[in-house]
Amino acid sequence: MAARERLLVIGGDAAGMSAASQARRLRGPDELEIVAVERGHHASYSACGIPYFVGGVVDELDALVARTPAEFRERGIELRLRTEAVEIDTRGGRVRMRSLDGGGERWEPYDQLMIATGADPARPDLPGADAKGVHGVQTLDDGVAIRRAVEEGSPRRAVVVGGGYIGLEMAEAMVMRGLEVSLVDFADQPMRTLDPDMGAIVAEAMRGIGVRLHLGEPVEGFDTSPDGHVTAVRTRDGALPADLVVLGLGVRPATGLAEDAGIETGPTGGIVTDRRMRTRAERVWAAGDCVETRHLVSGAPVAIALGTHANKQGRVAGINIGGGYATFPGVVGTAVSKICRVEVARTGLNEAEAAAAGFETLSVAVESTTRAGYIPGAVAMTTKLIAERRSGRLLGAQIVGEENAAKRVDGLAIALWNGMTVEEMTGLDLGYAPPFAPVWDPVLVAARKAADAVERDMRSAS
Amino acid sequence: MAARERLLVIGGDAAGMSAASQARRLRGPDELEIVAVERGHHASYSACGIPYFVGGVVDELDALVARTPAEFRERGIELRLRTEAVEIDTRGGRVRMRSLDGGGERWEPYDQLMIATGADPARPDLPGADAKGVHGVQTLDDGVAIRRAVEEGSPRRAVVVGGGYIGLEMAEAMVMRGLEVSLVDFADQPMRTLDPDMGAIVAEAMRGIGVRLHLGEPVEGFDTSPDGHVTAVRTRDGALPADLVVLGLGVRPATGLAEDAGIETGPTGGIVTDRRMRTRAERVWAAGDCVETRHLVSGAPVAIALGTHANKQGRVAGINIGGGYATFPGVVGTAVSKICRVEVARTGLNEAEAAAAGFETLSVAVESTTRAGYIPGAVAMTTKLIAERRSGRLLGAQIVGEENAAKRVDGLAIALWNGMTVEEMTGLDLGYAPPFAPVWDPVLVAARKAADAVERDMRSAS
Repeated sequence: MAARERLLVIGGDAAGMSAASQARRLRGPDELEIVAVERGHHASYSACGIPYFVGGVVDELDALVARTPAEFRERGIELRLRTEAVEIDTRGGRVRMRSLDGGGERWEPYDQLMIATGADPARPDLPGADAKGVHGVQTLDDGVAIRRAVEEGSPRRAVVVGGGYIGLEMAEAMVMRGLEVSLVDFADQPMRTLDPDMGAIVAEAMRGIGVRLHLGEPVEGFDTSPDGHVTAVRTRDGALPADLVVLGLGVRPATGLAEDAGIETGPTGGIVTDRRMRTRAERVWAAGDCVETRHLVSGAPVAIALGTHANKQGRVAGINIGGGYATFPGVVGTAVSKICRVEVARTGLNEAEAAAAGFETLSVAVESTTRAGYIPGAVAMTTKLIAERRSGRLLGAQIVGEENAAKRVDGLAIALWNGMTVEEMTGLDLGYAPPFAPVWDPVLVAARKAADAVERDMRSAS
Repeated sequence: MAARERLLVIGGDAAGMSAASQARRLRGPDELEIVAVERGHHASYSACGIPYFVGGVVDELDALVARTPAEFRERGIELRLRTEAVEIDTRGGRVRMRSLDGGGERWEPYDQLMIATGADPARPDLPGADAKGVHGVQTLDDGVAIRRAVEEGSPRRAVVVGGGYIGLEMAEAMVMRGLEVSLVDFADQPMRTLDPDMGAIVAEAMRGIGVRLHLGEPVEGFDTSPDGHVTAVRTRDGALPADLVVLGLGVRPATGLAEDAGIETGPTGGIVTDRRMRTRAERVWAAGDCVETRHLVSGAPVAIALGTHANKQGRVAGINIGGGYATFPGVVGTAVSKICRVEVARTGLNEAEAAAAGFETLSVAVESTTRAGYIPGAVAMTTKLIAERRSGRLLGAQIVGEENAAKRVDGLAIALWNGMTVEEMTGLDLGYAPPFAPVWDPVLVAARKAADAVERDMRSAS
């Protein structure tokens, strides 16, 4: 038997703990010691669930925690909370650890190192950004702080900065808490991962639930009271009074530790790995929000912070660390979200992304209902497909609609994954019954229209 | 310009009228005369909607009618109701038509003939099967008759014969109408298109809504009163008192007319066509429930009566009749249904079908929730995947669950369509957010388990 190895895991959330669990599954405690460190108070939690905890949809914080340190211990994984990795020495095979609760620092050796440091929220470098009452939404601790502010601070007006998924979900949470909510973004639409026409539908839905949208308004700073609490968000066009500010400005791969150790990062800022999640440094692996991966449609590297990728990549890394074989193939950019009744989904490239990748495209949008029109509960949905000129290959899809609309994007993501053309898609055998779809499924109608557009374009170009 | 041609269409529902509409779109009235005949009182309707009309979910019969004869006339399509085609003369290029409302018969010439005669409900050759109160569920007229019987006949006990989709949907409709409902089938499970383990979940759900199941009980006849009305369904095990009987025994391609004209039918009993929906007879096309098509997983011919196929095939035929080019690629056997809260979906081959096609398979079933467990409204769903040994190719999938479960089958149908292996599927980029799925989507969990099963099997076999 080989000597017992030691796996250190930096970061105790989805990617890190998935890797630890898989490595443990394949190699018992006699073969592999596993130590994971996490600088926060919680590990293995659903960050995606934070808006639902803040909004009160989820009562207990514990519901968002998949596994406790005690549960990991039972599986032979030592998980140290409030412990920060401050330096990696790849040549020496060791990591300097600091206890955040007063302990000192020490070097911990590793045979295999898993970097799962996640992402840092973008914080604007603006006056007042560090004021009391200005909250990020990244960790469970952030979620606890916002919920406490809502429940104990009796705020009346909330301003959400940033119109991406998190911004919108947090705006909804604030509406559910009875606050007056404004959302401000420098862009002209919420959800910039959608095309403007689809973003407009989302904007309308946001207004419908009472959110005041301030679009195309760059934030210039935060006004504060003498005691240092935020009082307003200052934009180019004026001041939005605020008792509470939530920053949903997106995230950046948290790679400082890796970069300091000379581990290669790519053009997106994420750590570069191969398909087995190996970094360019020996015996060092990485997964989750801190890495970049391949977009299977554009072919370009992308850094997309999503729990589902983190879990999958962590699992792949753990299997490989455990002596198995697994690869992470890349992503097609699928994402879904829900703002009150309105569901939003996208996959592949939007028009701007496709253009940036050098594609010329044709788009169609189809309005339909989610069920046969004569079945009660049939609600509106819009399905948009983006196809490449000439080849007719599907490049992207977006759905905005009410109940049961968003998850239909999965079929489109799988079509994309397989490089289907919109013409091929017109023949797809999708589930039909009146409670689930009109007899011509919206996906089929959109595929037909897109195929027609490709054909017309070829005729007019010839 | 070519001389004006004449298209005759036999059958005025999905396949026939889709063909007529597409042919008209491509060729104007100056080029192509279009006459469609339909022996019933209604054309272009949603037969799939009948259970919802009977159950009272849909109030008005008109809601099920997509287009009226007047609307077709406006598009230059002459639609004659209550007119039956009784003989096709392919050599002479003509069809003998009979008016069912007292008119006589006459021969009508055609240049192109579209056969869309649909399917005939299987009616058991048993004593009393023609009694009053014994209803088929095939045409809108059947739906009207059943609804009238429910509303005006004050029945107390209904017996549904046949546990397929229509049988189950009709059982639900009868429950909604407040009747005591029994369902009888010779098989040991409802939904024989599902594997027994998944069928058992459906059986449990049926019992949960108060339907008494008599499974494994062949029907032997129908008792009648002196005035010829049904009083009971007699099975091998006893008599089930009935004021109303609904037959949901499946359908057979209605091909008598075509066969009499020497038009080739295949092993399933359906008319044989090529991919453009051309029959073996010159200038004769066919589409819909009366044809057979190719199952893309088994490679075998199948006859599957579903409006979605009929619409697609009719469209393909119409485009080709109109001088365009389109093909129907075949099916993968996708179907969805809903019985009260329980949603059922399947695609590809079930275990028995796979075995019959010569495949050896490995199956996995995964229980999960439809949303993240901590989100209210998360309900149970079971996802089953059937993979080929060795290759790991996905051969079939089944889902039984509550709200939002069934339509997820589309992604699996598209994976099947593209010949994906379960190993490849583990990497799929599916939509994740807490209101839509657990962080490990049930499809991904099932794919992982199936991939593990394939690997274990290879190890144990080596």
